[in-house]
Amino acid sequence: MRFVLTPLAAVALTALLGVTATTQRSPGDDAAASIAEGRLPDGYRDWRLISVAREEAPLDDIRAVLGNNVAIDAYRTDKQPFPDGTIIARLAWSYESSEENNKSFGREQSFVAGHPKNGVQFMVKDAGKYASTGGWLYAQFDDGTPVRDAKQLQSCFVCHQAVKSRDYVFTKYAR
Amino acid sequence: MRFVLTPLAAVALTALLGVTATTQRSPGDDAAASIAEGRLPDGYRDWRLISVAREEAPLDDIRAVLGNNVAIDAYRTDKQPFPDGTIIARLAWSYESSEENNKSFGREQSFVAGHPKNGVQFMVKDAGKYASTGGWLYAQFDDGTPVRDAKQLQSCFVCHQAVKSRDYVFTKYAR
Repeated sequence: MRFVLTPLAAVALTALLGVTATTQRSPGDDAAASIAEGRLPDGYRDWRLISVAREEAPLDDIRAVLGNNVAIDAYRTDKQPFPDGTIIARLAWSYESSEENNKSFGREQSFVAGHPKNGVQFMVKDAGKYASTGGWLYAQFDDGTPVRDAKQLQSCFVCHQAVKSRDYVFTKYAR
Repeated sequence: MRFVLTPLAAVALTALLGVTATTQRSPGDDAAASIAEGRLPDGYRDWRLISVAREEAPLDDIRAVLGNNVAIDAYRTDKQPFPDGTIIARLAWSYESSEENNKSFGREQSFVAGHPKNGVQFMVKDAGKYASTGGWLYAQFDDGTPVRDAKQLQSCFVCHQAVKSRDYVFTKYAR
């Protein structure tokens, strides 16, 4: 049995393979390289939700923690330590009382995300490359610009040592 | 020019086409049908993040609003009214003081998502089918079980009329 493709079908197939190759590419590689090189990774805003949190003053924000595919898979299967390629992103926004919502609820109770705040932070797992900081790279971007202050970034690791038993990750998956 | 596929390649191609067909299927259809039929839609927990919020008592939760692909595309391109097939999901969890985080921060400031709370709510857009409620179906699932109380569901629409100018949707996209 043989299947014959016309040139037109071959072009379509090539396009199809291209699309498939893109979606099947290892999810952490490009983003990890971007972060290490000081560039916000493409598409991190599309990553899936791990959990949400609220930090009162002085941070005073409401936040979401997102994970790339490796992170989400590891969380859902309780795979710890997290495998190389795991990337966890922490986004945060100003914590704003919503007059509009309060009016509908008939009471002061509703707070929503306002403008981006306190930067975007990432943890990138590579047990070999980042062995000196527990296997994780800690990175922060303020308005898209990478924080280069080594002391500030080192302070991330110092703090995360409190949860060494969970591979240095504070956030638990919200089921 | 002709391309020839061996039977093995043809099997691989068939598998490939199958995968591609799945990922390219219209994203809202199955989920909308599930919700309308009283079943939690597959995969809604994987939808992308629209925004986060905190509701104080009596709801007393921290929440995430997720959207299917149609919803996210509409938000990002400011397409309103939202197109048919838009689905917006509201997840919520108990609002828990995190002793672990507070210890690391050295002060009481950190609140995280605990157990699921206040059900999972959906808005499903179909301007024709749900014309009597502004083009949206309002649905809620408590522990996976659909709320059948028509009065309770009608109250969703009553409240959302406050934001009729934004196609009945309170939540704004967190950029």
